[in-house]
Amino acid sequence: MIYNIAILGASGYTGGELVRLIATHPQMRVAALSADRKAGMTMAEVFPFLRHLDLPVLTKIEEIDFAKIDLCFCALPHGTTQAVIAALPRDLKIVDLSADFRLRDAAAYAKWYGQPHTQPQLQAEAVYGLTEFYRNEIAAARLVAGTGCNAATGQFALRPLIAAGVIDLDLILIDLKAGVSGAGRSPKETLLHAELSGGTHTYSAGGKHRHLGEFDQEFSKIAGRAVQVQFTPHLLPMNRGILATVYVKGDPAVVHQTLGAAYAAEPFLHVLPFGALPSTRDVAGSNFCHIGVIGDRLPGRAVVVAVLDNLNKGSSGQAVQNANLMLGLPETMGLMLAPIFP
Amino acid sequence: MIYNIAILGASGYTGGELVRLIATHPQMRVAALSADRKAGMTMAEVFPFLRHLDLPVLTKIEEIDFAKIDLCFCALPHGTTQAVIAALPRDLKIVDLSADFRLRDAAAYAKWYGQPHTQPQLQAEAVYGLTEFYRNEIAAARLVAGTGCNAATGQFALRPLIAAGVIDLDLILIDLKAGVSGAGRSPKETLLHAELSGGTHTYSAGGKHRHLGEFDQEFSKIAGRAVQVQFTPHLLPMNRGILATVYVKGDPAVVHQTLGAAYAAEPFLHVLPFGALPSTRDVAGSNFCHIGVIGDRLPGRAVVVAVLDNLNKGSSGQAVQNANLMLGLPETMGLMLAPIFP
Amino acid sequence: MIYNIAILGASGYTGGELVRLIATHPQMRVAALSADRKAGMTMAEVFPFLRHLDLPVLTKIEEIDFAKIDLCFCALPHGTTQAVIAALPRDLKIVDLSADFRLRDAAAYAKWYGQPHTQPQLQAEAVYGLTEFYRNEIAAARLVAGTGCNAATGQFALRPLIAAGVIDLDLILIDLKAGVSGAGRSPKETLLHAELSGGTHTYSAGGKHRHLGEFDQEFSKIAGRAVQVQFTPHLLPMNRGILATVYVKGDPAVVHQTLGAAYAAEPFLHVLPFGALPSTRDVAGSNFCHIGVIGDRLPGRAVVVAVLDNLNKGSSGQAVQNANLMLGLPETMGLMLAPIFP
Amino acid sequence: MIYNIAILGASGYTGGELVRLIATHPQMRVAALSADRKAGMTMAEVFPFLRHLDLPVLTKIEEIDFAKIDLCFCALPHGTTQAVIAALPRDLKIVDLSADFRLRDAAAYAKWYGQPHTQPQLQAEAVYGLTEFYRNEIAAARLVAGTGCNAATGQFALRPLIAAGVIDLDLILIDLKAGVSGAGRSPKETLLHAELSGGTHTYSAGGKHRHLGEFDQEFSKIAGRAVQVQFTPHLLPMNRGILATVYVKGDPAVVHQTLGAAYAAEPFLHVLPFGALPSTRDVAGSNFCHIGVIGDRLPGRAVVVAVLDNLNKGSSGQAVQNANLMLGLPETMGLMLAPIFP
Repeated sequence: MIYNIAILGASGYTGGELVRLIATHPQMRVAALSADRKAGMTMAEVFPFLRHLDLPVLTKIEEIDFAKIDLCFCALPHGTTQAVIAALPRDLKIVDLSADFRLRDAAAYAKWYGQPHTQPQLQAEAVYGLTEFYRNEIAAARLVAGTGCNAATGQFALRPLIAAGVIDLDLILIDLKAGVSGAGRSPKETLLHAELSGGTHTYSAGGKHRHLGEFDQEFSKIAGRAVQVQFTPHLLPMNRGILATVYVKGDPAVVHQTLGAAYAAEPFLHVLPFGALPSTRDVAGSNFCHIGVIGDRLPGRAVVVAVLDNLNKGSSGQAVQNANLMLGLPETMGLMLAPIFP
Repeated sequence: MIYNIAILGASGYTGGELVRLIATHPQMRVAALSADRKAGMTMAEVFPFLRHLDLPVLTKIEEIDFAKIDLCFCALPHGTTQAVIAALPRDLKIVDLSADFRLRDAAAYAKWYGQPHTQPQLQAEAVYGLTEFYRNEIAAARLVAGTGCNAATGQFALRPLIAAGVIDLDLILIDLKAGVSGAGRSPKETLLHAELSGGTHTYSAGGKHRHLGEFDQEFSKIAGRAVQVQFTPHLLPMNRGILATVYVKGDPAVVHQTLGAAYAAEPFLHVLPFGALPSTRDVAGSNFCHIGVIGDRLPGRAVVVAVLDNLNKGSSGQAVQNANLMLGLPETMGLMLAPIFP
Repeated sequence: MIYNIAILGASGYTGGELVRLIATHPQMRVAALSADRKAGMTMAEVFPFLRHLDLPVLTKIEEIDFAKIDLCFCALPHGTTQAVIAALPRDLKIVDLSADFRLRDAAAYAKWYGQPHTQPQLQAEAVYGLTEFYRNEIAAARLVAGTGCNAATGQFALRPLIAAGVIDLDLILIDLKAGVSGAGRSPKETLLHAELSGGTHTYSAGGKHRHLGEFDQEFSKIAGRAVQVQFTPHLLPMNRGILATVYVKGDPAVVHQTLGAAYAAEPFLHVLPFGALPSTRDVAGSNFCHIGVIGDRLPGRAVVVAVLDNLNKGSSGQAVQNANLMLGLPETMGLMLAPIFP
Repeated sequence: MIYNIAILGASGYTGGELVRLIATHPQMRVAALSADRKAGMTMAEVFPFLRHLDLPVLTKIEEIDFAKIDLCFCALPHGTTQAVIAALPRDLKIVDLSADFRLRDAAAYAKWYGQPHTQPQLQAEAVYGLTEFYRNEIAAARLVAGTGCNAATGQFALRPLIAAGVIDLDLILIDLKAGVSGAGRSPKETLLHAELSGGTHTYSAGGKHRHLGEFDQEFSKIAGRAVQVQFTPHLLPMNRGILATVYVKGDPAVVHQTLGAAYAAEPFLHVLPFGALPSTRDVAGSNFCHIGVIGDRLPGRAVVVAVLDNLNKGSSGQAVQNANLMLGLPETMGLMLAPIFP
């Protein structure tokens, strides 16, 4: 059976990546594409790299006949997403890539996103989409909230360690390096090639990045107590990729062993041999996450480095992985594409 | 049926790209990998981006049992390739990615490569691997010579025009821009990031680039007379991609029409609407070639711009396409992967 | 004596480059800076790389007391520039970096810029700012029109050849590769890092680029007859630099000799030994232009390659060079900064 | 007075940067250049970006007449440097850019560099070249040891904080991001454009990086007790620049105030307003270091971010700054060149 897929917000980078993945997915086909300001355009105009595909023209959301859609990816900005999803059929399977349904707590949402949530019932219904840790809930869900790309990277490095109680919960530090595609396709001076190429800087530093809301929610839930990590993101002159350098107090060998055991059966999460550390170049374009562990010269301190592709495993790949579960398909279907190097 | 594939010279970029493509090819599996200096290493060590695959360890060529191999890709340097292929079983299907068998004429080989060919019989046997123009010969061949990546780009822009007689054969000029992966993985000062990043320059200018041998051979054959193009390659600070700006004298509309008609049924060659010109970013990681045509303000002059990915359509993708034909498989099998953007 | 300098439109890349150059110029000081939308901001906010300098706050143009200004650089968009300069004091020395006064002919301006010129008297008064060829006129001028950066590059390669009559005037072809800073600092989707990094494409191809107006004007004037070149610009993933590959019919040795002789005494124009071709990396950040000549394998065809830094020799460096002449200072003052590599 | 300068090891990146700086230094001239393997070549061949300068041909060290040299920069690899400097005249002023004389303790040298020091007397004589903290010693020194570029960056962020006792000495963490030019010009597979462009990874992680020897030496000296920081360097796809994100426990406002007070009179060290964080792009090509401080959401934790250009302030600019002091010149002479952006 071929499932009919709709993508709302198809003219952004995560939208393009969803189409790229679905293009070779054996049991999905793109049946509808929306892009508000670019409605009426073809995908070949918006994304010439998809020129070889036979795709529907971009429309407005209200023109889509959702009765014919089996699953809908929603790749719209947070804030607007709430109202859009509230207006969709109540039985439509939805994977949302925005930030609107990641936080379960209304107060937390208001705190991190600066405005009250307008759809608390949907918020309560949504399942957090970190596939490897919410498989059963996702398979049974109607509405799945894709995680933040930075939030996913940090959690892959840390969740098993917090769950196993092998690190000091009060001294967790995530220094994260991210490529620019995560900032989206909207024209901004700060995202110009001439501004970014050849340099690096922090952004949303000082505990202000919104993905901290996800870290707080998830890590506290696992630990059964409040856990607050320190988190400093940096923007790098590269298009795809996140590298999270995670500093923890704990025995490095135990940290490595714990991660290795937790992910031994995971098709997309690869723990490298002890002492080997990963590179973003090795996961670009794929749904894989590579994780390495090394001990510091200071006893009792371990460094965990996790890398993934923000547009793929960090958003659109994860979204397809979740959609596979929701449609009863094998979780890895269409997602075993090798990374691209160089 | 699953075909067993050997790759000789698997530690270079075209070797890695071959493995990437075969990884999701429905009817090929990597059965043997060689790399002389890196024999004994795993592919995960040589190419960490292939870590998720279950691959044979790198060996020396003489350790491979070719009786179990259905088809062999040979991605070794020119010169050494001749002797290696001569020593392989005479009934082994081979797709060679080196320059050793591209030129049919022994004198032409000696001229462009600075040494006599040592295997003239093999040279006579080899079929030139520009798939779209040698389909039948390739399907029947035992030994196929993959084309130069620059040579492929220029030919896709020009062959139908020369064949149709719609351009002046004495005023063909190819100004080509190429990414650095085409220069290979051998450490050289001129290929360092610090040397290349943020700048551009010509290389092998002045009619010295060896791919001119292929242009001469093929264009003269099509035209039935000697055709010599002018060709200036440039190295650009990007990893993948070739853009050939081809200047011809002829009616732009006729040029566009001729190319459009010639490639109308081609799955990998896309002619854009008249006046639209392609970008290398739109074919990166794929086996597609985009071609655009525009007229100049000077009447009777047309500009044809062709782009492809040098590692894929320019070498490893082309090689798999040829292997599909040689094995009796659908030509596009495993090659419809979408480009990756951004 | 220290001259007081005003820069109008100081928040763009050419404005920043002007401040960078004046910062170590022995006889200029920045006395006023304007930026309409960013009025009230400091330069350290607009350009943190200039933080170490003691600079005036950005103002609106009408707040500047031009009685205290010895020379004014105008780095505003074309179209608006005309009215701004018309409103400035009639005895103020001005170096304009926009396109508004490059073309002497009103009809040519209207043709290339799509609107009539509103200040024909100023247009008639302006001197074309290609320093090496208009020294005396510039030294005596009140209003100098900086050239297009692409136009400068092509002219450095071609003017002596046209003047000497050593090339075929009907077969001149300029294939130009340009970095992205030339496209300015305004946020546009097409200029995002994620869009440009790692790829290349043409722009304004087909004889539509406005710098053709300058080529036509200057080359026809030198030749004493109409000369129309073919010109195809490409955008490259690099911030600074232009490389013009210029194809001509003529004797390569004569071409080299002609350029060498013409520029033998020029401090900023360097002709490389015959057969050596330049790289943009070697002029980045400087006011130098490197020029190389090579012969093609096809007899009677020469390739001239010229490189310069579009923001420096192509605009702000040239502007300071012209200002030096207008103020009676040594032409090279403040401009002998070495390029930066890597 | 013009001082005659020799540069040993002039064909590497720090050598080229020294020549670039001296080119516009009012009181230095390049009188001799050595490069062992490239002896006999001109600098225009080795570094075409220096083509406009009138420079001596590269020679072997033994061909230099040091009687005519006022000061010698030594930019050779560590290990070989010791013997070279031991063989130079005993009264020659030397600024060494290698790692050979940074560590005062013979055992520390042996530990971090894996071999005993062969010139303990010279080691004892050498002054550590972090100009802002060793001014008097440097002015009086004959042999100054330039610091590691990473070591300089971390020290600028931390020395005043350790001296003032405002941070926890047992929880200092430096997560450092470095451009590739610091790895030098020797051809290595890992430094190829195709390997590095578009990705990031750690290197020398786990407390193995040799600059830790400098951190240990200096921080322990200031604190009067052993101080061991945690330090993880990352390689980024950019040519120039280091960004050190330094995590400390202490009051952020006090941290900011302490750094601001310490550097208030420093011409090259700029502390940004509280909460503003710097970018490497803003110091590229210059001798400036920008430092920002922000508080985390976790009380009592501050983040200090320091950026500099590894080739300039991190090595060759620092070296000229030290040479100025040693020659009795103003410390900033020739070093106020503005950064280059974009």
